[in-house]
Amino acid sequence: MTDAWMTDATTPQELEHTLDAATGAFEQWSRRRPADRAPVLRAVASALEAAAPKLVVIADEETSLGQDRLRGEMVRTVFQLRLFAQVVTEGEYLRATIDPADPSWPMGPRPDLRRMLEPLGPVVVFAASNFPFAFSVAGGDTASALAAGCPVVVKAHSGHPRLSAATAEVVHGALRSAGAPEGLFDVVFGTEAGRAALTDPRVKAGAFTGSTEAGRALFDLAASRPEPIPFFGELGSVNPVFVTKAAAERRGPAIVSEFVGSFTLGAGQFCTKPGILLVPASAGLVDLLPEAVPSTPFTLLNERIRASYAGAVRELRDTAGVRVLVSGTPTAADPSPTVLRTTSAELLRDPEALVREVFGPATLVVEYAEESELLEVARVIDGQLTATVQGEDDDTIAAELIRLLAAKAGRVLWNQWPTGVSVTHAQQHGGPYPATTAPATTSVGTEAISRFLRPVAYQNVPQHLLPPALRDENPLGIPQRVS
Amino acid sequence: MTDAWMTDATTPQELEHTLDAATGAFEQWSRRRPADRAPVLRAVASALEAAAPKLVVIADEETSLGQDRLRGEMVRTVFQLRLFAQVVTEGEYLRATIDPADPSWPMGPRPDLRRMLEPLGPVVVFAASNFPFAFSVAGGDTASALAAGCPVVVKAHSGHPRLSAATAEVVHGALRSAGAPEGLFDVVFGTEAGRAALTDPRVKAGAFTGSTEAGRALFDLAASRPEPIPFFGELGSVNPVFVTKAAAERRGPAIVSEFVGSFTLGAGQFCTKPGILLVPASAGLVDLLPEAVPSTPFTLLNERIRASYAGAVRELRDTAGVRVLVSGTPTAADPSPTVLRTTSAELLRDPEALVREVFGPATLVVEYAEESELLEVARVIDGQLTATVQGEDDDTIAAELIRLLAAKAGRVLWNQWPTGVSVTHAQQHGGPYPATTAPATTSVGTEAISRFLRPVAYQNVPQHLLPPALRDENPLGIPQRVS
Repeated sequence: MTDAWMTDATTPQELEHTLDAATGAFEQWSRRRPADRAPVLRAVASALEAAAPKLVVIADEETSLGQDRLRGEMVRTVFQLRLFAQVVTEGEYLRATIDPADPSWPMGPRPDLRRMLEPLGPVVVFAASNFPFAFSVAGGDTASALAAGCPVVVKAHSGHPRLSAATAEVVHGALRSAGAPEGLFDVVFGTEAGRAALTDPRVKAGAFTGSTEAGRALFDLAASRPEPIPFFGELGSVNPVFVTKAAAERRGPAIVSEFVGSFTLGAGQFCTKPGILLVPASAGLVDLLPEAVPSTPFTLLNERIRASYAGAVRELRDTAGVRVLVSGTPTAADPSPTVLRTTSAELLRDPEALVREVFGPATLVVEYAEESELLEVARVIDGQLTATVQGEDDDTIAAELIRLLAAKAGRVLWNQWPTGVSVTHAQQHGGPYPATTAPATTSVGTEAISRFLRPVAYQNVPQHLLPPALRDENPLGIPQRVS
Repeated sequence: MTDAWMTDATTPQELEHTLDAATGAFEQWSRRRPADRAPVLRAVASALEAAAPKLVVIADEETSLGQDRLRGEMVRTVFQLRLFAQVVTEGEYLRATIDPADPSWPMGPRPDLRRMLEPLGPVVVFAASNFPFAFSVAGGDTASALAAGCPVVVKAHSGHPRLSAATAEVVHGALRSAGAPEGLFDVVFGTEAGRAALTDPRVKAGAFTGSTEAGRALFDLAASRPEPIPFFGELGSVNPVFVTKAAAERRGPAIVSEFVGSFTLGAGQFCTKPGILLVPASAGLVDLLPEAVPSTPFTLLNERIRASYAGAVRELRDTAGVRVLVSGTPTAADPSPTVLRTTSAELLRDPEALVREVFGPATLVVEYAEESELLEVARVIDGQLTATVQGEDDDTIAAELIRLLAAKAGRVLWNQWPTGVSVTHAQQHGGPYPATTAPATTSVGTEAISRFLRPVAYQNVPQHLLPPALRDENPLGIPQRVS
């Protein structure tokens, strides 16, 4: 248990010290051979693993997410740190590229040019409320930024301050024992400290997971600095699911049951929660929902989320063309899952009003008459983290639907569900705005490291002055692309 | 010769037609197999090559850059188009990554996940004044965006309107004969049309080469849209050159002569012009300069550039601690090369006043006493496209100097000169702000294509519904990274 004073708002003096230390740490940490950052990442992973029983209890007290789910999230958090340790050891992420001098290069003699990715500088990470481990103090943004060679200043989320302080203590201890430079990592508390860090000239990038409103405000701050910096905001998403007629006919009950599991998972508090399910009016799937949806109340993360959930559900429910299908039996404090219904004709009439994220256990079922309406909906939706098709192999509409959805979403799924985002090499957790502020990047998976890197080319630099990653003898043993 | 009316400011109605056509072209062009875009790029290259004699004459009339230089720039322009044709044929740029399903993945069973890069959508390209071919209508931004699968709307530069119209005519003809979709490419004229295109919701990215002031204004527009879009601005750079004591002693006259060649090349109108030369006070290099600098006047690109050059030289000359070393014999219309001098102590006292880009044939020679001052200067400069060291292999300061410069510049050179940017795989033409607005990207070299792409992951999608680049059988024959 951590004392309350440790989570008081960070003062400007404390922040100054944190940023100054991060700047000092950058010179050391960025120059450390990538593979030598791996033991430090692994030390943090092991320390978190050892502290998990204690941390999970605090996390559950502050978020009500349940110990099982939180233990699972800790597994993911530890895995991410170890995976990035592997990434920096393998070194492919550096994208070392070598063009030896070539006097016969068609546009004129080519000098010796060698390029690799190098770390940006100190990064400020804004922690998320709904992933107190995996997207918080020692989560994916922190892991990938540290792996890249960047110091990290985490702005703790106000929803779990004690956990943030306790996690920071574990991370600090692990870093110290593993010989990381002083100032490599710190946590600050309070909105003002977060804003001040993001606008400080020593900070070179921001990463954020949270609401579109808060994320956009921070993006605007980052972009309007005298020196604008990249801001990797993972914001909101409706994650529509398109059920074809054939799929509804052949697998209707299974689709409904899996859908309910997905939209109520973690009380619907995932950025990948399916918020729209498009089903053929003819197949009667809507009639299966009232029975399939649990009527038990869910405890949401905190009072603010409860209030904004209630408001968002009310607003969507009161929109023209929307009716209530399932309202459950909420308690005074806790809502139960809500399913609203409408038609694709209504949605196409006013997509802005109907295609909206509701954070929490609510979803909108949209009935369509003709499958061609699925294509029309795919054309009108805006940027999404995910889009899912429940279809059959012989669906003639599937190819076109998938092409249209790929133009709108970071990840397109077939006959699976968007919740549960695996951490892998090919994962893409991003998408066009408003899903993210940086559609060319991902916040999950090994590619997340590239957010905190920029390319540097060396021209005609002698071997002994080149970074080891670019030398002919390849002392790091990493993949080099040689022309 | 093109009629004057063709270069009138584009009307809102004309722009609407252009953007509408670009949107329609995107669906076709983005879905074309990458290798099938290659013949179209090659057709544009060949058409430009055939039209070169005519275009070079117009270009020289409008820019005064000289036919030799312009012919060379055309070679580069044609080469870029053909190089991107090769890039899309080889397909490595797609970064196809395949994680087959893995039930024993440590964080829980992994689904089949496959990721590749896909085109963003229509792109607006703001042409540069100083590269009427290579960074203009059919220049590197256009070539890389088309190669990526994105339609292009070029905002012509007001400095060469007739050339822009004539080039566009050649490009249009080539695209038509090669079977490119209608609307894939167009040119618009006028500041208002450029701004309107950049803020139009159908446009998904902007690319720009020009001044920091104009680039920042456009960046701000792009970032403040309801849907912010990436804006790849290549702005300003001073491109400092650091001469060590040993190099000055052993190669002083050669360094001076090469430096003069570099800063006066193209009348100093390159974004990579070396604007600062740091030399040891003891070596007497400053005394060699008056004789080495040509006193003949240079004709600058246009009246606006002449005026801003004169103003910038005056301002720098009148800064405390700055003296005139070479002022040449300018005519009423045309300046001759100007060399100003100061000391590293003055520079370190007020880097903001002294480290400033002057577009045109002017440079600032900075004398230092101790080599350690080179490190101090490297620490205070802001983002640069390039930084150069003239050194000797046994210079003890070189390693640290290069590491510091790599943190500030996109390209670090050793014993060569920053002007003359080769188009290769490992080239990096970028750098931290204010060199660019997007330090993770390059506007020269094959990697420039990635600016116009974003990743999409496909989860559990059957083979026949996957994009060909991600299928097991690999019908495109491209590199696939399989876990």
